[in-house]
Amino acid sequence: MADFDLQAVLDRIHPVSKEKLAAIQARIDRQAKPAGSLGRLEEFARRYVAITDREEIRAKRVYTFAGDHGVVEEGVSAFPPEVTPQMVFNFVEGGASINALARHAGAEVRVVDMGVAVDFTKLPGLIRRKIDYGTANFTKGPAMSRAQALECLAVGVELAEQAKADGVDLVGTGDMGIGNTTPAAAIAASLCRLPAEQVTHRGTGIDDEALARKIGVVARGLELNQPDPTDPLDVLAKVGGFEIGGIAGLVLGCAAEGLPVVIDGFISTAGALLASELHPQVRDYIFAAHQSVEIGHRHMLARIGQQPILDLGLRLGEGTGGALAMTLIEGALRVYREVLTFAAAGVSEGAPR
Amino acid sequence: MADFDLQAVLDRIHPVSKEKLAAIQARIDRQAKPAGSLGRLEEFARRYVAITDREEIRAKRVYTFAGDHGVVEEGVSAFPPEVTPQMVFNFVEGGASINALARHAGAEVRVVDMGVAVDFTKLPGLIRRKIDYGTANFTKGPAMSRAQALECLAVGVELAEQAKADGVDLVGTGDMGIGNTTPAAAIAASLCRLPAEQVTHRGTGIDDEALARKIGVVARGLELNQPDPTDPLDVLAKVGGFEIGGIAGLVLGCAAEGLPVVIDGFISTAGALLASELHPQVRDYIFAAHQSVEIGHRHMLARIGQQPILDLGLRLGEGTGGALAMTLIEGALRVYREVLTFAAAGVSEGAPR
Repeated sequence: MADFDLQAVLDRIHPVSKEKLAAIQARIDRQAKPAGSLGRLEEFARRYVAITDREEIRAKRVYTFAGDHGVVEEGVSAFPPEVTPQMVFNFVEGGASINALARHAGAEVRVVDMGVAVDFTKLPGLIRRKIDYGTANFTKGPAMSRAQALECLAVGVELAEQAKADGVDLVGTGDMGIGNTTPAAAIAASLCRLPAEQVTHRGTGIDDEALARKIGVVARGLELNQPDPTDPLDVLAKVGGFEIGGIAGLVLGCAAEGLPVVIDGFISTAGALLASELHPQVRDYIFAAHQSVEIGHRHMLARIGQQPILDLGLRLGEGTGGALAMTLIEGALRVYREVLTFAAAGVSEGAPR
Repeated sequence: MADFDLQAVLDRIHPVSKEKLAAIQARIDRQAKPAGSLGRLEEFARRYVAITDREEIRAKRVYTFAGDHGVVEEGVSAFPPEVTPQMVFNFVEGGASINALARHAGAEVRVVDMGVAVDFTKLPGLIRRKIDYGTANFTKGPAMSRAQALECLAVGVELAEQAKADGVDLVGTGDMGIGNTTPAAAIAASLCRLPAEQVTHRGTGIDDEALARKIGVVARGLELNQPDPTDPLDVLAKVGGFEIGGIAGLVLGCAAEGLPVVIDGFISTAGALLASELHPQVRDYIFAAHQSVEIGHRHMLARIGQQPILDLGLRLGEGTGGALAMTLIEGALRVYREVLTFAAAGVSEGAPR
């Protein structure tokens, strides 16, 4: 990873053309329906077409990044850490929720080991990019080194480039990592400049006592490590996670490659926020899949500047919300391609009155 | 229609079994994911499977009902009334938004002429059930007779029975009718016991002056006709519309046939509310597709007792939101069928802590 040049990636990120967006909306406005009546479907089509110069999605792919977290020893999760590798096996076998929803969406799932605490020497289908066997416990020091944080970004950028090369037109992000709502909350607190209790929530389902403990863990991690919110790489290194860093790199890489990326829930949004703090135009390429149940989520989305597409009370991760949101973007493109204009359909236009 | 027995239809409507719902949720809870973590997807699967005793949708169908409205002569719409038949042609030709979104959802579209003001003598593919050439202007008298209102319900019930006979497992409702947000608002005001200004909005896009006029039209229609909110058929007859009555009948028929029905936006919800006021268990069979931009919509959904699935700023009608929502129900069923249990996946279960 010594040859990874973050600045070169950032230099390839450009704003989406306002002229293209306007031209696409003008075509939408000629379609036989009241102006603006398809609401956010029009936004999805406008942004997707402007980003890609395509009207149809050839291939969709969800990258689900997995990693373990030293901070689980503080008792912050309802599940034991061995569930991370167990779920990696489940993903590769195709038996998890993301597999079912990706099949529903017509997307492939790629599972990436960024830092699970066990070896997967011979697991076919797994993308092996292990940076370490789980992060360090951030209540005792930084979660990872700055070099490792950079390495996470490099992996994500490489996967975005691979997706582009493979003809993928829509990328989704996903995560698996027992304990990872804790680093995600710490990232949210740092980058949104909010106290731990405003961004820390129940994850997979902890009770009041464990929640109080988890808030304390996030607060202590921030107090001890003092991550610099103006330096996203510092935040990732001190209180982040390997899979979150992989997501940040993927989102960054998608923006650099001109690929729209659907971010899933709380963990994915922490990664996307790191990326969007590295470059302000990253937000142009992001579709926010859904509003998570986690209370810190809306603050991160507000800072990124994207509205969630769905609000279905999801709190699973894996990329599940992103796979669902992909189907709505695809529906929006169907309307864009197939609905006749007023003129072609022989329909009278309305006059504001 | 003399042989249509509304009471016999109502007598066939039963509540969805609580035991079935609980058994389905128990199976969901054994799947390898934190309990409840797929939020409303779990609700969709639970309700769909309990209603149908099926885990997979064989066929989906959207019925788009069209009708004209005498009240348009009061200047309540941004579009001229000739757009109703023009859009019927567009639906049958497959060039409208509902056609595109139904293709996306894998659903067929059936277009029903309930009361368009022109003849469609030879339009293949159109279901001809015209009750009259548009309703009467309800600011001058009732929109239709009570016999016609009953005829509307009979048509909808017949179509639900046909859908069941054809092996359709999920039905959607849609509407087309220039001016029809005005009768829908009048129905909302009457059944929700609210003043016209709290339920009347901009429809396809009217300005402030036209909105003030439209509120006055709704208020005058209610004042003149005095529909009885405890008698839904009276409300439909006095201030409703033929396509709204068809939707009411379809929703009623779906409940009687044990078919889940996805209701679209403002107009469809007015129809569904009429049906659910006729029998309290109708609500069990309703999936509310989306939150419309129309301000009166939420009051009707609250009265029905269903939460909207999507909130995308849609205000088109035709059944468009319903087609999109169908894809989410289908995704939920994919998860229900395909996600492995903790035991089968070899994943450790969590313990609340």
